[in-house]
Formats: sequence, C-alpha cells, structure tokens
Amino acid sequence: MYIVPEKAVADLVTREASFDAVEKVFAAMASGDAYNFPVVREAIGHEDALYGFKGGFDRAGLTLGLKAGGYWPNNLEKRGLINHQSTVFLFDPDTGKVKAMVGGNLLTALRTAAASSVSIKHLARQDAKVIGMIGAGHQAKFQLRAALEQRNFEKVIGWNFHPEMLPNLQEVADEAGLPFEAVELDGMREADVIISITSSFDAILKADQVSPGTHIACMGTDTKGKQEVDPQLLVKADVFTDEVAQSISIGEAQHAVAQGLIQEADVAQLVPLRQSRLMDVLQQEGLWIRPRALDLLTNRLVLIAHGDDAAPLDLSAADLGGLLAKAGWPWR
Amino acid sequence: MYIVPEKAVADLVTREASFDAVEKVFAAMASGDAYNFPVVREAIGHEDALYGFKGGFDRAGLTLGLKAGGYWPNNLEKRGLINHQSTVFLFDPDTGKVKAMVGGNLLTALRTAAASSVSIKHLARQDAKVIGMIGAGHQAKFQLRAALEQRNFEKVIGWNFHPEMLPNLQEVADEAGLPFEAVELDGMREADVIISITSSFDAILKADQVSPGTHIACMGTDTKGKQEVDPQLLVKADVFTDEVAQSISIGEAQHAVAQGLIQEADVAQLVPLRQSRLMDVLQQEGLWIRPRALDLLTNRLVLIAHGDDAAPLDLSAADLGGLLAKAGWPWR
Repeated sequence: MYIVPEKAVADLVTREASFDAVEKVFAAMASGDAYNFPVVREAIGHEDALYGFKGGFDRAGLTLGLKAGGYWPNNLEKRGLINHQSTVFLFDPDTGKVKAMVGGNLLTALRTAAASSVSIKHLARQDAKVIGMIGAGHQAKFQLRAALEQRNFEKVIGWNFHPEMLPNLQEVADEAGLPFEAVELDGMREADVIISITSSFDAILKADQVSPGTHIACMGTDTKGKQEVDPQLLVKADVFTDEVAQSISIGEAQHAVAQGLIQEADVAQLVPLRQSRLMDVLQQEGLWIRPRALDLLTNRLVLIAHGDDAAPLDLSAADLGGLLAKAGWPWR
Repeated sequence: MYIVPEKAVADLVTREASFDAVEKVFAAMASGDAYNFPVVREAIGHEDALYGFKGGFDRAGLTLGLKAGGYWPNNLEKRGLINHQSTVFLFDPDTGKVKAMVGGNLLTALRTAAASSVSIKHLARQDAKVIGMIGAGHQAKFQLRAALEQRNFEKVIGWNFHPEMLPNLQEVADEAGLPFEAVELDGMREADVIISITSSFDAILKADQVSPGTHIACMGTDTKGKQEVDPQLLVKADVFTDEVAQSISIGEAQHAVAQGLIQEADVAQLVPLRQSRLMDVLQQEGLWIRPRALDLLTNRLVLIAHGDDAAPLDLSAADLGGLLAKAGWPWR
C-alpha cells in the first residue's frame, strides 16, 4: 500500500513521465486495452462544489482505479487552497484490494498538459513556429510549458478574458527564451498551434480567426454546457479525440454534434502510432495536406482547422489513397 | 487524514453504531438531505471481476465520499481472500480534500445487516416469533445476528441452495439460544419475517410461500439481472425502499417494474420515524393491518406480503384514514 501525499508528487513525477504515460494510455484506449468508466459528476449543493469520480482500467498496463474529487470554487478565496482538488486511488486488478492513494492535483495538471502535448507531437505540422494560448490561468502555464517541448517554436502569443493574467504566459515564454505577445482573438490567425484552456461556457474562438493547417487543442471543456470554440470550426476540421463518448457528451464536440453540424462518426479516435506514421509519410512525400489537415480532439478537444480559403489539394484521390495505405490508414 | 485498515475496523465499529448510522441516513435520504450518486459497476474483463463506485453525500451529516471495489469471484479459492473487496474514501465537503480511507469489507457486511435490521424495527409486526433466512453464506450470518436484536424471536428457520452451508445459520441461532430448523421453501409460510440474502439470478421465493403480514427483506439483489423473489410478491405487498431509483433499476423491484406489474410510483421511500409512528398508532389502537400490512423494500428489497387469503380488514376506510392521519401519513 503506497500513500503519496500531494506535496511529494512534484519530486516523483516529471513532465517526461507524464507525457509517456499519456501517450501509452491513448494508444491503449485506441486498441481497446484501456477504457474509462462512465463519469460521475454532481453539483452537491454545498460550497457550490462539483464532485465526482473518473475511473478506468488499462488491461495492458494492469492499472485499475479512479480519480475522486472535483471543483470547490471558494477554496482559494476562503482558505488559500487551490480550487481543483482530487485524489487518485489505485487498486490491484487481481484482487480488488486498494494499492495506492496519491494526491491528484499536480497529477491532473501534468496529465492535462501532456494530453495536448501528445496531440501536438502526432498531429501538428513539423515546422510550426507560433503557438497561441487562449487562457492564461494556473493550468495554462502547464499546457504551454509541455507544448514548447514538442516543436521548435519561435514565438508565443496569448489572449485571456482577464488580460491582467497574461504575465503567466509571459513567465513561461521567458523561461524558454521566447518572445511573448498579447493579441486580440483575430491575432490567432498567426498561430500554427493553438491551445485553449479556459472554463468558458461560450465559444471564444471563431472559425475565421484560425488559419488553415492550424492544430488546435481545446482542453477546457469537461462538462456539459462548457464551450471554447465555434462549432463551425469542427465542421471545417478533422476531429480527433482520446475518448469519443466523452468528447461528444461532455467535451468540446458536444455542441457541434447537438446542433447536427457533425455526427459521432465524424469524431475519430486518436491512435498515436498510426497518426505519426501517416504524418511521416506525408512529410517524406513532400506533401502537407492543408485543406484537410490532420487534427485532434481529445477528451477535451484538439483539432486542426482548414479554412475556407485553403489552397486546393494538389493530389488525386488515388494518390492520396496510396499514401494513406502506406501509413496504415484508416485507423478506425 | 485518517487511515483505518481493514483489520482495525472490527474494534472500532459495533452493530449498534452501524444500526444508528443506517437508520439516520435512511431518514436523511427520505428528507432529501442525503442522496446517492449514480452507481458505476463494470465487468472489467479481468479475473471475472465486477468493479465500481458507489458514492453519495449527506448534507445533514456533512459526509461526502464513496465506496470503491467490487467482487473478485476467484479470490477465496486462488488466494484465501474474501471475494467482496471494497474501500471507503471520505472527503471534506468544505474543501474537496480527502479525509479518510477505511477498509470497507466489514463495514459493507455491517451496513447490509443494519439495513434489514432497520426495516424490521420499523415495519415488522411487534409480535414476530419466527424468522426465516433464505441464503446461508458469509453475509447471512451478519443479517441474522442483527435481525435477532429487533424482536423477541423464538425460532430461526432457513433454506439454502447448498444445504451444506446451513450450519452457518445454526451457529448464529445457537449464539442467541434459539432453535434452528432447516426447511423447504414451502416451510417459509411459518415465518413472520424473512430475509433473503443470496446472489441469485432467478426468483427463489414464490408468492404462495409467504403468509399474509410477513415482513420480507430482500437484500441480495444489487445488479441488473439478479432476482430473489417472485415479482407477483411485489404486487401483493406494500413496497418500500431506501432509494427508489436504484431499487427499480438494479434492485429487487427491477423485474416487477420491467414486467409492468407495478409502477415506479408503487415503490415508496422508507421514512423511519413516520413509519414507526404509524406502527405505534396502529398497535395502540389494537389493530394490525394484515391484508395491507406494512412492508419495506430497501435498496436491496424489503417487503411484507399480504396473501390472497388474507382476512378482510375489519375497519372502515374512514377509521383507517383517521388512524393514518394521527400517524402523520402519508409520508410521501
């Protein structure tokens, strides 16, 4: 029985380890070896808190357990505690006995950061130079720090509903020796990769504020009603996720699906290895499929938009089919 | 942060404390102060195990948490461990921080025993003499021991699919200085109170094997598909439960409701105090309503059947209405 208090987690878990774990579990989910149980999430009617359980089982890694906890919005102001509070419990899948209790706050931050980092690794263009951040809170720093390790970014741009929080992004850019620029949402057209990490209930980013070929990771939407981007963006994009069922019910795809703009079948499961192989083939062949660029929608959401103004694809359907076959397509 | 390992629970929790806690939480559930979250229960595809989470919040008692674990059917044979394995986790409802981890195996046994014990206290006839047990496994001993504290029983009768386990019941009867008799199911007509505690997937007890006025607590059914009694028994009974939603979906009432024999509205929430007051009034008035006797269906199920051959009720509707009004009826 292991008990790992929250304060010990920082010395035990690195960004690299989080990345590897999340990449492996995405692959295990795609192959059916790992899956999540239905999410329980309740407004308990006390302290305005949301509380619940996210459980799952990885048959390949023999990991069984859950994260319990939620969001206590008054914690910081009333008690100086962070508002997200969670604890991870692991069980022995052979016997059902409890095996470990681990503080889940930093783990959640690292896991969420790793998810967009995995999507960038496998789906963003190799020559991405500008990363755009929508959201500049506590979690945004984690997302940005992890994302900067995946490409040779040359510049960070950012927008936040409360501009006074933008120095959070500046701080991470400074660490990495990169320039930072605060922009209006229209300025996001300059970005090759965009991460949104807000707790918004309305679309922030409009479809015409994204350039073709951009990879977007929408990480903030984890509850019915939340929303970060214009549903039209999902129509114009290939949409990937780590868990289709969650994405279309409590993730960013819920709105486009509810409005009939896309169907469940339009949301694809990310298969890290196959997607990367496809990207390699396309790049070896000197092609970059802009108008139908690859994109990913995680449990939260990650996608690449391809704009209306995209250059026509200079490739016959047969050529494309051949390329895709080489890459092991389709992955569904 | 409290950590209470399984082996320490026996010295910390008594049958009396379990009874008090369950009675209080039933009352809190009836008043809307406490409620359960949706149950997650998954066949994980490893070791034939069922695993999941039962969580809830008691706003009155400020208790927030869950029980995680399940059923590992090979534990006993392969490893000498009990097959039911669970752990209870409590959280601070003010902050979301984890507060306690408690071994849940003995707690589950005591809680399940207390549930039928509460139903007997509030709903069984005061002059009950014979208690019938259907099921004679590990948990049956807990149910019987707790039940015997609620009335001046004079005899224990029992049936089990595997008769070689009946000495379990004999042992508890001996402890209490009561005679024990193994019976066929027809012999259950002698019982004033019946507890069924099996993991059956077919009805065991038929409607004509129960005498009018008998209080039945069906405790074994906690999963879709399980079943202990003839659904016709629910038609002939007043049906009570601690949680209507669970009772009609994964509890004993699922079959009668699915077959259209009774409706959700026919399953009443147990309100311990009001039900007891009603019983007191009826007994002070020298009346015992046999043909429409009180009964209870818990999350698992508890009920009193009133047979077709019941004596006609020697009381006008107006008289009955007056009595019920004195008792604070209706409780819904």
